[in-house]
Amino acid sequence: MELLKRKIIEEGIVLSDQVLKVDSFLNHQIDPLLMQEIGRTFANRFRESGITKIVTIESSGIAPAVMTALELGVSVIFARKRKSLTLQDDLYTEKVYSFTKKEESEVSISRKLLSPSDRVLLIDDFLANGEAALAMARIVENAGAEVAGIGIVIEKAFQNGGSKLRELGYDIESLARVTSLQSGSAVFAD
Amino acid sequence: MELLKRKIIEEGIVLSDQVLKVDSFLNHQIDPLLMQEIGRTFANRFRESGITKIVTIESSGIAPAVMTALELGVSVIFARKRKSLTLQDDLYTEKVYSFTKKEESEVSISRKLLSPSDRVLLIDDFLANGEAALAMARIVENAGAEVAGIGIVIEKAFQNGGSKLRELGYDIESLARVTSLQSGSAVFAD
Repeated sequence: MELLKRKIIEEGIVLSDQVLKVDSFLNHQIDPLLMQEIGRTFANRFRESGITKIVTIESSGIAPAVMTALELGVSVIFARKRKSLTLQDDLYTEKVYSFTKKEESEVSISRKLLSPSDRVLLIDDFLANGEAALAMARIVENAGAEVAGIGIVIEKAFQNGGSKLRELGYDIESLARVTSLQSGSAVFAD
Repeated sequence: MELLKRKIIEEGIVLSDQVLKVDSFLNHQIDPLLMQEIGRTFANRFRESGITKIVTIESSGIAPAVMTALELGVSVIFARKRKSLTLQDDLYTEKVYSFTKKEESEVSISRKLLSPSDRVLLIDDFLANGEAALAMARIVENAGAEVAGIGIVIEKAFQNGGSKLRELGYDIESLARVTSLQSGSAVFAD
């Protein structure tokens, strides 16, 4: 997605060869027109996939997920993230390890919001090690529902999350695949 | 807003005379069409207020804020919420006490995202004691910017946040004003 790549080049801040900060349009400030365009792009890509629900994780996944949901005419569920959670029977809960923050957290979704007939599109802002996407996928599959696709805004293709998920057979669309941050600016796959 | 009130009546769960749960369309699952309608309503209400930026708090404020921002053609900043935050010079930080969760947290916004020329519309999902809205207002005013309006999806009018903020002179639009939950269902102001 050219508009997104241009935004990353112009406004992204490369903090190290591993960390790209996009606080001016995705992770802290949000550009709603860019989100609308992202939503339309994901919707066009997955329009024939029979999506009944979108699942994302708070907070930065919410804006692109809601815009995609609006285009597809389905609801969004955002998984709640917590450092430690009292075990609750009415929730599907999975652990997520964040390599960036070096901490384990838990994400959860209310059981009553997912059913075995759901075909779910997972949306997230970043794909790095795939921990968050895999946790969402496990929740969806624990509910007996199917992951019908995964939409990623920015994939850090030099980390192994993308290949892990593709090997598992998931249908992934990444709008910007960053292959390197080593030169101090983002290099894209194509 | 009639559509919102109908949703609250049909899907809201009154957990006590103080707590209204709207997890099926706002706080956990999100109805994107309702969010679009909310965004249009806030945008129409504040279209002449010279808004340059929208500020909300993660996570449930993001969807209504982004939809309003899309209509008004401005960006959204979502304040980050953390239990304890290392003091950082590049952030505006304010404390928020949650009466529901009985804990104090901090919300923060990067200094470079707000400037004294900004006229800010604050958006939040709930207004109860006004703690979150007041913290956002202090951040905006610490940046030298102006709070040009406050848009609230659901106001719990039996708590004192609304009157506190109105006494301070803020221009508030609440899309649903709940005056009581005592009968086990929501009663609205009009």
